[in-house]
Amino acid sequence: MGEIRKAVQFARTGHPSDVVDLVDMETPDVGPDEVLLDVEAAAINPSHLLTLSGNYGVQPDLPAVPGAEGIGIVRAVGADVHDLEPGTRVMIPPYSGTWRQQVVVKADAVAVRFPDEGDPVQFAMIMANPPTAWLLLKSVVDLEPGDWVIQNAANSAVGQYTMQLAKIYGLNTVNVVRRDGLEDFISNAGGDVCAVDGPDLGERVRKATDGAPIRLAIDAVAGDATQHLADCLADGGTIANYGLLSAEPCRLLPDDIIFREITLTGVWLTLWLRKYSTPEERAAVYGELAGYIAEGRMHANVEATYPLARIKDAVSHAMQGERSGKIIILPNAEG
Amino acid sequence: MGEIRKAVQFARTGHPSDVVDLVDMETPDVGPDEVLLDVEAAAINPSHLLTLSGNYGVQPDLPAVPGAEGIGIVRAVGADVHDLEPGTRVMIPPYSGTWRQQVVVKADAVAVRFPDEGDPVQFAMIMANPPTAWLLLKSVVDLEPGDWVIQNAANSAVGQYTMQLAKIYGLNTVNVVRRDGLEDFISNAGGDVCAVDGPDLGERVRKATDGAPIRLAIDAVAGDATQHLADCLADGGTIANYGLLSAEPCRLLPDDIIFREITLTGVWLTLWLRKYSTPEERAAVYGELAGYIAEGRMHANVEATYPLARIKDAVSHAMQGERSGKIIILPNAEG
Repeated sequence: MGEIRKAVQFARTGHPSDVVDLVDMETPDVGPDEVLLDVEAAAINPSHLLTLSGNYGVQPDLPAVPGAEGIGIVRAVGADVHDLEPGTRVMIPPYSGTWRQQVVVKADAVAVRFPDEGDPVQFAMIMANPPTAWLLLKSVVDLEPGDWVIQNAANSAVGQYTMQLAKIYGLNTVNVVRRDGLEDFISNAGGDVCAVDGPDLGERVRKATDGAPIRLAIDAVAGDATQHLADCLADGGTIANYGLLSAEPCRLLPDDIIFREITLTGVWLTLWLRKYSTPEERAAVYGELAGYIAEGRMHANVEATYPLARIKDAVSHAMQGERSGKIIILPNAEG
Repeated sequence: MGEIRKAVQFARTGHPSDVVDLVDMETPDVGPDEVLLDVEAAAINPSHLLTLSGNYGVQPDLPAVPGAEGIGIVRAVGADVHDLEPGTRVMIPPYSGTWRQQVVVKADAVAVRFPDEGDPVQFAMIMANPPTAWLLLKSVVDLEPGDWVIQNAANSAVGQYTMQLAKIYGLNTVNVVRRDGLEDFISNAGGDVCAVDGPDLGERVRKATDGAPIRLAIDAVAGDATQHLADCLADGGTIANYGLLSAEPCRLLPDDIIFREITLTGVWLTLWLRKYSTPEERAAVYGELAGYIAEGRMHANVEATYPLARIKDAVSHAMQGERSGKIIILPNAEG
């Protein structure tokens, strides 16, 4: 019999902080091709809240342990596992259910080992947002150093990573936010231009960029914000939507679609992970991003960390709109 | 000095039937590389009304003669023109201004000669709508015989041509209209399924097609109609918008864009004519379509024909939403 440890579980979908419960869970035996991990840190992302409320694009069979991402320390390895040693810090394979103290996974699904230096809380956010920023910048439009990109929700975690990664790739960014007073935040994150969203965004952005053509717009908001991004794009430009923050449909004038050849398309990391990438590509991308995070060139703000026992508080906190950073769960920290 | 003939002119944009005036215009001398055409028939399209009201994607310098399409009979040829003879029926080169009795054009811009048989009024509609249907079916998604396509505004002229051309190419069509009672119209035009637009369109279409995957949706309406088409598409499908009939922005849920990989793009014949096609490609496409029209395999309903003297009535008639067919101007008919 395995040890009894704590885990978060949801047996139904609904209001996210209502449906999560802390339960005792027996850690299964470690098979010959498996490893046992102590979960060190796990992030709460909007997609996890959508999963808890039943509104995400992929829903697990219930009951399930929430949490698609996190990092862990190898505690035990199966008899046939020779390339992982106890004490190694690794990325927990996606969709393993990370809001728990221990998890057993297949050893060959462990694709990323982290260097010893670096902040574990920053590593814990690697799974979803950094590769989403990478996909947004790399998979939609062919960009050259010196090109401009515009994004909204720029003060989100993906927004921060996108600014940082754009800087690494030599791209310039226009960063759209929904309130005043974020100029320093954007500038510190490496953003070139900060603009508050509004119906005259196009005009203000053209002034701020000297009319430089913008061929890629990154949309996490939808609603009228989609049209505002279109107003900033050069003819033939593409809007890549990856978020539903306004809970409204994207609105886009046919005039822009037809006469100015603006295209609206989507980016979803889950599809890339499950359908459009090979294990080698995933290892290469995560390896590149882990390096940037270890060096401190990519990082996201963290507003608070919570022990597992306070999971309902952590989820409630993550649901608040006006945060300065991510909420991180530390499953094995003292409660 | 050339002859004085009648022409329609607009010197300002505004309410379409207000801004058109009948004027006397001197026919210019025919240069050595030019031909003089008697305009036989010219269609009034929604894009012409948008041009008159100042809302089209390309606006002419004013004053201008409206009319981007029409057919004419060669009446005189310049000294250096050897491949066109008086009496030949030709397509007037696009954007020549066809709402007049005579027009002089460059001989090498005359790309389409019509066979002697065939209905001149049907030939007069060849310039814009038939190649738009061709572009919608041929340039957006690679389709195979047996594939399904869905379109709205199916009882429009482009809608009719799209049904007919789809049938020629072996494609099946779902044809969305905005009112009851058009089943026979759709069936007579070669459409396979007729459906009235509404929020439950997706469910009804899946039933009518036995759940066949639909990878291309053709949208002339925008507004909520865009989302209704998305509801009918298979994952990864594309919406091609080419019209602004609802005068509303396209509305499309990010859920479909992100999770189901629905893409929204545009099709505009003007761009194909001016930017994306060679003269040889244009001649080949118009030649193919002229053949189908001569054989009666492609045709559009005509509701009324007007002499040039009644241009304001003709434009007012064309602005009515509930027509059974196109309005055609016959510039040299008796008024």
